[in-house]
Amino acid sequence: MSDVLAAHRAFYDAVETGDVDLMAALWVDDAGTTCVHPGAPPLKGTAPILRSWTVLMAGVGYIQFFLTDVEVSLLPANDPTTAIVVCTENILSDGGSVESFNGGRAVATSILVRDGARWRFWARHASPLIDPEDV
Amino acid sequence: MSDVLAAHRAFYDAVETGDVDLMAALWVDDAGTTCVHPGAPPLKGTAPILRSWTVLMAGVGYIQFFLTDVEVSLLPANDPTTAIVVCTENILSDGGSVESFNGGRAVATSILVRDGARWRFWARHASPLIDPEDV
Repeated sequence: MSDVLAAHRAFYDAVETGDVDLMAALWVDDAGTTCVHPGAPPLKGTAPILRSWTVLMAGVGYIQFFLTDVEVSLLPANDPTTAIVVCTENILSDGGSVESFNGGRAVATSILVRDGARWRFWARHASPLIDPEDV
Repeated sequence: MSDVLAAHRAFYDAVETGDVDLMAALWVDDAGTTCVHPGAPPLKGTAPILRSWTVLMAGVGYIQFFLTDVEVSLLPANDPTTAIVVCTENILSDGGSVESFNGGRAVATSILVRDGARWRFWARHASPLIDPEDV
């Protein structure tokens, strides 16, 4: 569980510090990986996914994620090979980020897979959290 | 792969036909399951998730999903216990549905787990597909 949370937190550290190499190290390198940015169509394959993060990080001067309601599921329970992490992202940024929506709150579902002792991202889906009072 | 796609399609059949029992049969019954409806905070646990679908189905007279760009990943590759399905939902409905956004297009990431020969939903995250021309 702590290994999963460490990899999940490292992902946000990579975005916050603009660390492209760390981001690349956190993803499985496969044509089948997927990433959905808020409001956007799915990206497929690690190369396009990393490119999108590089572009995003290049376009943001300052960004910080405060994660709340972090929930981790390990599957299968007896010998986990997959982890699902759902959380709310409370985002502070100087704007311009595709991840910054509606006052800076989003919900993310991340799917990590175990590779020996390491957990790496296989898929991620983030979406804007829409305040009912704004609709 | 075909078993996964059949379970994935059955999910949409359940919504289209308002079949609450079918929907319930398609989810793992566990406190750790998660579901993110477009724009909404995460739901956790099968009971609240099924309640949300029942409310949604009760509020929609007509809804039909045309799925495109359906991508399936099976993990681990050698003896899959988890399946990730990403697709674009093209939705026709008479309105009032929380799943109907921006001209009726959404992106969904579904996570299914294998239980013997059956695949059932463990998590789902759907989000509106926002047309860049509308932003």
